[in-house]
Amino acid sequence: MAKRNLSYKDAGVDIDVANALEDGYLRLVKSTYNPGVIRNDGGFGGLFRLQGASGLFARRWRDPVLVSGTDGVGTKLKIAFMLDKHDTVGIDLVAMSVNDILVQGAEPMFFLDYVGIGKADKRVLLEVVKGVADGCKQAGCALLGGETAELPGFYQDGEYDLAGFAVGVVERRRLIDGSGVEPGDAIIGLPSSGLHSNGYSLARKALLDAAGLKLSEKPPELGGRTVGEELLTPTRIYVKPVLAAFMAYKVKRPIRALAHITGGGLVENVPRVLPKKCAAEFELGSWNVPPVFKLVQEAGNIREDEMYRVFNMGLGMVMVTTPPSVETVLAKLRRAGCRGRVVGRIVPGRREVRFV
Amino acid sequence: MAKRNLSYKDAGVDIDVANALEDGYLRLVKSTYNPGVIRNDGGFGGLFRLQGASGLFARRWRDPVLVSGTDGVGTKLKIAFMLDKHDTVGIDLVAMSVNDILVQGAEPMFFLDYVGIGKADKRVLLEVVKGVADGCKQAGCALLGGETAELPGFYQDGEYDLAGFAVGVVERRRLIDGSGVEPGDAIIGLPSSGLHSNGYSLARKALLDAAGLKLSEKPPELGGRTVGEELLTPTRIYVKPVLAAFMAYKVKRPIRALAHITGGGLVENVPRVLPKKCAAEFELGSWNVPPVFKLVQEAGNIREDEMYRVFNMGLGMVMVTTPPSVETVLAKLRRAGCRGRVVGRIVPGRREVRFV
Repeated sequence: MAKRNLSYKDAGVDIDVANALEDGYLRLVKSTYNPGVIRNDGGFGGLFRLQGASGLFARRWRDPVLVSGTDGVGTKLKIAFMLDKHDTVGIDLVAMSVNDILVQGAEPMFFLDYVGIGKADKRVLLEVVKGVADGCKQAGCALLGGETAELPGFYQDGEYDLAGFAVGVVERRRLIDGSGVEPGDAIIGLPSSGLHSNGYSLARKALLDAAGLKLSEKPPELGGRTVGEELLTPTRIYVKPVLAAFMAYKVKRPIRALAHITGGGLVENVPRVLPKKCAAEFELGSWNVPPVFKLVQEAGNIREDEMYRVFNMGLGMVMVTTPPSVETVLAKLRRAGCRGRVVGRIVPGRREVRFV
Repeated sequence: MAKRNLSYKDAGVDIDVANALEDGYLRLVKSTYNPGVIRNDGGFGGLFRLQGASGLFARRWRDPVLVSGTDGVGTKLKIAFMLDKHDTVGIDLVAMSVNDILVQGAEPMFFLDYVGIGKADKRVLLEVVKGVADGCKQAGCALLGGETAELPGFYQDGEYDLAGFAVGVVERRRLIDGSGVEPGDAIIGLPSSGLHSNGYSLARKALLDAAGLKLSEKPPELGGRTVGEELLTPTRIYVKPVLAAFMAYKVKRPIRALAHITGGGLVENVPRVLPKKCAAEFELGSWNVPPVFKLVQEAGNIREDEMYRVFNMGLGMVMVTTPPSVETVLAKLRRAGCRGRVVGRIVPGRREVRFV
């Protein structure tokens, strides 16, 4: 990768820490490389060959559209700080950006991360980047660059912030933007792994403050898992199953829209991909709402509609497809390890979400 | 641009602040659009058409290499906090990433920013994004996406952190990697605008702590400027002059290497682009070291060699060219408003920097 700067000269980082970090980073980073990467160790920019390497991996894009996204992990990081466990938030970081670019039909190519920290701590930083590398492998994208910024006085001891950045590519004629959605289309929901990376301020307030639960507790609702394990479960990365569903179609384009369900829940994220005269009707009870949501709701005495405006409620990704293709799409998703199901349909309306 | 998330539901941001921000952001962001941008207001990913729009702006890349970089602004942000002036650090943010990708020969296409802040403040956030948009316009790249993360408890009141991501493109056969550098080549230095975005921990310690200067003071060395103005001067963006110099050559490639002088100064950044058997010899006195460096050095009683290991010392970008092309390159740079000069040459050696 391009040189990962850790400006020890400037900020007083121990030079041994810096060297150990550089070695550790490089090992992790190399494990994510895909055929597009052009090695540029120590260089200034991360290099990625769009058309792929020659021979087997050559790609031919006619009218490539680059799709990019950036996001952080938000206050879920506080759980990592409290548990002093830092090797999964990098997966969340990758997930938040790659799931966003995936909904436009793009295949993730590469990812870059930024870590802001008060004082460099080798163990913590390597755990964080290990998670980022794991996420990149799940998403099939290369960790092409990164920055570790040591900023004395910006962050509290043991804390940090993360920002991630993903770039993918899609052939222009296969770009998914929801414009083809029409009444009668089916809505397929893809299960989330839990809270993902949104709603943590409210979840922490409900579980830890209002209900007084501890991260080490095992409330019966969680079936043996601790509150901490549940809250730190990584955001699901939908790249492989969703790309498998795309790939099933060479000419037809039966997958008309996707929405990544983040802050704002189904209520705010699904309308982002609906045409003006369509609404999305979700059939409550047609999918499984994982127990963590009920636990949060009861702990915080939160109204049902508020829950659906903050949390993903068990659906991390939503897909709109033509009715004849539903079974094929579900089969492709299932073969890639993702059990989607029909959770609603498109009806005439005004870019809104209804629950029936 | 893709929707700029500000997850007010989650974090308790005032909804009026969020709406005003969204409007303000959109105006700023649109001012940076270039022909590659595909409008996707409210969408999930930022869309950029690599081959450009049709007709006049159509581009044809044969073997495009995407070059990406990420960086932050570092502790220079503290100066912005102290002065409560936030409309230029965004220029620094863009500069740090685009200058990095420029040295590989890449033309910046688009940029994304991440702002982490404790509590959203409309004025501060709009100032920050205004600076980012200004930087993007200077670099000719579109501000294609961004994230404002409100993270209660992560940052002190009135503080924030910034991360930036830039993506550019270069034809593979025109990728610059320093491999053609050989003894006898000339080194052209491009003037910096001051400290740029590196060495601020040391500079603040020297000027504000050791010498007890105030940001509002006007030491005679700075010729009427205050310490604050000097320290907050935006990092120079070299995209336009350097691309003008590249463009002068259709077939020949006389520009053999570039180095962006950031943390580590000439001493650490120039060797990153030298072949194994070459050294860079800089002739001290051949360029103008701006007065701020002398001020910092005296204030902090810093050794000369330390200065050259931390600060850019007046050269923000360094270019290695074949001797016959020096005059043409200098003329192209000058016509684009950048007064470069020959500051040294390549000699046999071991990837090191010497000062004579």
